[in-house]
Amino acid sequence: MTIALPLLTEDGTACCGTVAGGALESEQAERIARVFKALGDPTRVKLLSLIGGSDTGEMCICDLTDPVGLAQPTVSHHMKQLVEAGLATREQRGKWAYFRVVDGALQNAARTLLPE
Amino acid sequence: MTIALPLLTEDGTACCGTVAGGALESEQAERIARVFKALGDPTRVKLLSLIGGSDTGEMCICDLTDPVGLAQPTVSHHMKQLVEAGLATREQRGKWAYFRVVDGALQNAARTLLPE
Repeated sequence: MTIALPLLTEDGTACCGTVAGGALESEQAERIARVFKALGDPTRVKLLSLIGGSDTGEMCICDLTDPVGLAQPTVSHHMKQLVEAGLATREQRGKWAYFRVVDGALQNAARTLLPE
Repeated sequence: MTIALPLLTEDGTACCGTVAGGALESEQAERIARVFKALGDPTRVKLLSLIGGSDTGEMCICDLTDPVGLAQPTVSHHMKQLVEAGLATREQRGKWAYFRVVDGALQNAARTLLPE
């Protein structure tokens, strides 16, 4: 009996060889792309920068609308994408949601892609 | 005569105050978002990682197709987006295009957004 061994892995990347050796695994590449995709929008770049640069490291949704000049539902939608990408955390306190930057999430994605 | 002073700058960000102090300028946010948008795709994440991790720091388009399992025109299209975002450079040598990672481009974008 002969068994056909696949030369390609299920995700379509080559199974081995020097050229493929430097490539990220597909799952890892998808995870990293999700992080960067969330930051592929100038409003979300501004929002994350605002929160990261705030004195307490935390910002209320109520203080994020004015600096980006957008209504709260729109800002909430943008913040949801940043939270889902693992770049920010959300905590509901009474009426308002508060957001923090996840330490190292962006830098880790950048370093996994291109180690310094 | 009274003059109405705008409380908002033309790009919609607040002109001043502690909350707005941490925000990036719109132009800067757009530049950063362009860099990250180019990496919001797992194939482009893989391509940049492959080039950055190669022994010579340079890769021929002819060696990039197999590892990502895509045809050359598709890979060329992805590489064009990485070049336009300032993440890679392209050099034509005879028949083939060769690509290099632009040192520090990704890390600079990440650090401008969130200084470490």
